[in-house]
Amino acid sequence: MDYQKIIDELHQKYKNEDNIGKVASYIPELKKINPNKLGICLLTLSCESYGAGDYQEKFSIQSISKVFALTYALIKVGDEIWKRIGVEPSGDPFNSLVQLEFEKGIPRNPFINSGALVVCDILISKLKNPKLELLNFVRKLANTKDIYFNEKVVASEKSHGFTNAAHVNLMKSFGNIKNDVDVVLDFYYHMCSIEMSCEELAKSFMIFANDGVLKYNNEKIISLGISKRINATMQLCGHYDEAGEFAFRVGLPGKSGVGGGIVAVHPDLYCIATWSPKLNNKGNSYLGFKVLESFTTITKASIF
Amino acid sequence: MDYQKIIDELHQKYKNEDNIGKVASYIPELKKINPNKLGICLLTLSCESYGAGDYQEKFSIQSISKVFALTYALIKVGDEIWKRIGVEPSGDPFNSLVQLEFEKGIPRNPFINSGALVVCDILISKLKNPKLELLNFVRKLANTKDIYFNEKVVASEKSHGFTNAAHVNLMKSFGNIKNDVDVVLDFYYHMCSIEMSCEELAKSFMIFANDGVLKYNNEKIISLGISKRINATMQLCGHYDEAGEFAFRVGLPGKSGVGGGIVAVHPDLYCIATWSPKLNNKGNSYLGFKVLESFTTITKASIF
Amino acid sequence: MDYQKIIDELHQKYKNEDNIGKVASYIPELKKINPNKLGICLLTLSCESYGAGDYQEKFSIQSISKVFALTYALIKVGDEIWKRIGVEPSGDPFNSLVQLEFEKGIPRNPFINSGALVVCDILISKLKNPKLELLNFVRKLANTKDIYFNEKVVASEKSHGFTNAAHVNLMKSFGNIKNDVDVVLDFYYHMCSIEMSCEELAKSFMIFANDGVLKYNNEKIISLGISKRINATMQLCGHYDEAGEFAFRVGLPGKSGVGGGIVAVHPDLYCIATWSPKLNNKGNSYLGFKVLESFTTITKASIF
Amino acid sequence: MDYQKIIDELHQKYKNEDNIGKVASYIPELKKINPNKLGICLLTLSCESYGAGDYQEKFSIQSISKVFALTYALIKVGDEIWKRIGVEPSGDPFNSLVQLEFEKGIPRNPFINSGALVVCDILISKLKNPKLELLNFVRKLANTKDIYFNEKVVASEKSHGFTNAAHVNLMKSFGNIKNDVDVVLDFYYHMCSIEMSCEELAKSFMIFANDGVLKYNNEKIISLGISKRINATMQLCGHYDEAGEFAFRVGLPGKSGVGGGIVAVHPDLYCIATWSPKLNNKGNSYLGFKVLESFTTITKASIF
Repeated sequence: MDYQKIIDELHQKYKNEDNIGKVASYIPELKKINPNKLGICLLTLSCESYGAGDYQEKFSIQSISKVFALTYALIKVGDEIWKRIGVEPSGDPFNSLVQLEFEKGIPRNPFINSGALVVCDILISKLKNPKLELLNFVRKLANTKDIYFNEKVVASEKSHGFTNAAHVNLMKSFGNIKNDVDVVLDFYYHMCSIEMSCEELAKSFMIFANDGVLKYNNEKIISLGISKRINATMQLCGHYDEAGEFAFRVGLPGKSGVGGGIVAVHPDLYCIATWSPKLNNKGNSYLGFKVLESFTTITKASIF
Repeated sequence: MDYQKIIDELHQKYKNEDNIGKVASYIPELKKINPNKLGICLLTLSCESYGAGDYQEKFSIQSISKVFALTYALIKVGDEIWKRIGVEPSGDPFNSLVQLEFEKGIPRNPFINSGALVVCDILISKLKNPKLELLNFVRKLANTKDIYFNEKVVASEKSHGFTNAAHVNLMKSFGNIKNDVDVVLDFYYHMCSIEMSCEELAKSFMIFANDGVLKYNNEKIISLGISKRINATMQLCGHYDEAGEFAFRVGLPGKSGVGGGIVAVHPDLYCIATWSPKLNNKGNSYLGFKVLESFTTITKASIF
Repeated sequence: MDYQKIIDELHQKYKNEDNIGKVASYIPELKKINPNKLGICLLTLSCESYGAGDYQEKFSIQSISKVFALTYALIKVGDEIWKRIGVEPSGDPFNSLVQLEFEKGIPRNPFINSGALVVCDILISKLKNPKLELLNFVRKLANTKDIYFNEKVVASEKSHGFTNAAHVNLMKSFGNIKNDVDVVLDFYYHMCSIEMSCEELAKSFMIFANDGVLKYNNEKIISLGISKRINATMQLCGHYDEAGEFAFRVGLPGKSGVGGGIVAVHPDLYCIATWSPKLNNKGNSYLGFKVLESFTTITKASIF
Repeated sequence: MDYQKIIDELHQKYKNEDNIGKVASYIPELKKINPNKLGICLLTLSCESYGAGDYQEKFSIQSISKVFALTYALIKVGDEIWKRIGVEPSGDPFNSLVQLEFEKGIPRNPFINSGALVVCDILISKLKNPKLELLNFVRKLANTKDIYFNEKVVASEKSHGFTNAAHVNLMKSFGNIKNDVDVVLDFYYHMCSIEMSCEELAKSFMIFANDGVLKYNNEKIISLGISKRINATMQLCGHYDEAGEFAFRVGLPGKSGVGGGIVAVHPDLYCIATWSPKLNNKGNSYLGFKVLESFTTITKASIF
């Protein structure tokens, strides 16, 4: 299959299509981005690499970083973390405070904000220098030193993040946050502010396509079992209230962020990352979703 | 891989294990079942067949029938049905009336009771003899005439099914049920009362492992796309509030019923069906879940 | 104080005011009413009687009948009924199925639909001829034989009452409905269909202003304690989601119905009933509310 | 009526009764109180004064302070405040975040925590020295300089008040908190920490029995209308999830606090305050509730 041709055609088609999505407005710093960016990068397990458009330009990965944090917490702490977070989809069209309250401060899964905040809290308790260590972990996965936090985005989120503050305080009231509320939020916002390109994201997610092993040096980062479980969690919980739609239309485990990025994994085959800043009404990249749906339709390959 | 050996060992191991599950008590007729039954049946795409224990004994398939109804509705009506039902997981630890009310009578997915009731309503509007036609569709998938409703179970459910009556009335108040409430409930309870064995279930689910094609005569029943989408929907919504746990531990699309049956599909590889009547506290077969988790762990194969 | 003058002036003022309310549309039979009707009737404990406009014309009392049913159940069964119904305001802007489910089928109070349905269920279990006996009880309070059910309204509500059917089935699933669902709904719809005039309503509510004693023959119907408690329940739960607003602006215990009627009680002083079919967005009579607010403002008398 | 005798007998009876209530445990500083304290104070509009037990001992008034804050905000800002807070009972057995989220950050009424936090925010915006000015207002109502905040209680609440922090952050995310989150919480905890005796509370609530006029110097503090509305709001929202029960059993507007105090008002007749630290499972003083119920039963007088 001529992957480069498919990706080029998808890039060409969607670049010129009417994009009814909207750039995330609740983080002021993110609104400054050029809304017409479109990048696609595909890396196969047989080490082929395909890119189109702005696939080498860095952007704010936002919630995609939750997958890195979860993976790192599983490495550092192991299955203990599941005592404090569930693995069920949130299935909630309205905000998650309701469920969090009903379920006594235990977030439904590690990819909703409250769940990621608990993962952050776990890492803070375990690490000496949480922010730097997490950053270095991501750098290792992506095989580059050139990955950083964006402090402007951190500041922008902090000054508007009252919903996250509500969540973390509610969980603290239930005893499911051990560290200081402000320390947890600071770590969380740094994590979300990481900037990477489609190419770097695809590289760093290759461990989930490769049974937990780094492609570039064959180092085993996580076990086969953990790799499969992270994929399962991405499949069920990776796209806010649109996880079902993503499974239904794209058919691959994946994770999206409000910066407009989406990474998807076809275990034992490939990773694909897309970036387009305008989001649909569920908070997922409008074009990214379409590119991925078209890609699995054209290639007639999904995990289902 | 010696599948027969694996299955025999799993049967042996779990048959003698302490089973802390409980037979479903809310349908009086189902409580009469021998709680120690355990059947396992595996059918591969290469036409091999493996069975252990009570795999040829019929039992009440209950919610597993919702997959047949959905498939038949997609054949008869097509994507129109998604205007009246969603594809998102319900993610609700408490009963679904809350969400149904919040979302104006549109059930979250076709595998929660309210969603299956809408599918039933759709079939009733479309078919001349809904009950017989659905039964014949299932018979065709399983390649046997010997499949029937159990009228005692129907009567038992009717006299206790006040929660379902609440759901269907609520949806009727929102205009999402077109037929008479009692007619819809009657069809729904008949559908749930279908009795099949593990072997028959595995046979009838082979179309989802075989890209929509009947194995025994190569007839195309549904398109590749529909087959993939039904698998995706089973993965995300097939196990009540335990869909995430099932994906996490078993890693295959599947559907369970309160009669104690579970069917799981590994696309392009096999179907596996289990039956053990005692349920865990989420309403899924306690042993069936364990057998399937062990099976994918031993065979090191899941879709993730 | 010249009550007749006050009432005439209020009638005059509001009859000609722009009425932005809307006649209840969900019961087709009620939509046929002339929307411009306006009646006011005041009866004092010193046996004075004042009326203005359409105060002698009968209309569908709807939810006002819940006060009669509660009173009759307290007479026939006593405080036992509080094991199956609460006395707390519902405080719910959205439909009450959520709370009913959360609270295991125990309605918050006897004036929300689910609570009134339980009261009906209690009366059905206790009475030989529930419908006739309740009707005769109301006739006795109003001191007239000329009070009837409206069978057309009953039929109209039955064919559209799917939300009530959902509630009663949900409560039945929790064991808080003892009789057949259809029998309970039939009794409930008959109760709601009772037709009375403002004058008859004011007369029949005089027991709550008169410490439980019928004014016209000094018969003790209920104890002082029960009378005070029914008043308290009307104050806290008598106006759907607007109970607080009614207490805040009018300051009297009262009960409204979607037929456009409102009755209010000033213990030891008077009863006042109003009727104007157009409802505000909370389901209470738009003009009736204004007339009563003006009345207690002008007379500078409320219970607070 | 011999009020002193009634109060003495109630004090005697309940002092020796088994008290199954429990001292509030979530504010560590409050747990240090002697749980057997019992004080009752009655002040009539005809200037009689009756006391029994520990009625002159100061205690933490907690939520009772919300009535002072509301009154002061109505004086300083007027009806504008109702754009940011409702007057409906909350009716919620579980925590109010659900409703706050559903209703876009507008609290249901000024006596639930979130509502009081908005009142605090309003006062902070309006006053130069909010804490001192509020304290002086309370001192004026009680006609004594000897009323203070308890800084130990403030510190204790701050270090455990994560639920309140969640509420205020959630409202901030909806734009219904204008000042800094920490400033609002600091003011709120100071307000709650005010210490007063039953006698001082009864004195300071006399304006609500006396149509808004201070008894000791005839100064008009609030209009008759505002006085009636505050009474109505206390009646409907003054006792957490037990407002209906309090109206039903006691039949007077009132406000309770987790410090064990309750103040109740009989407009145009009297104020009565009780204090007993052990709380029932709804957070209201177990004995205080019983004393007030007995008092209105014996005196056969309630507003209903």
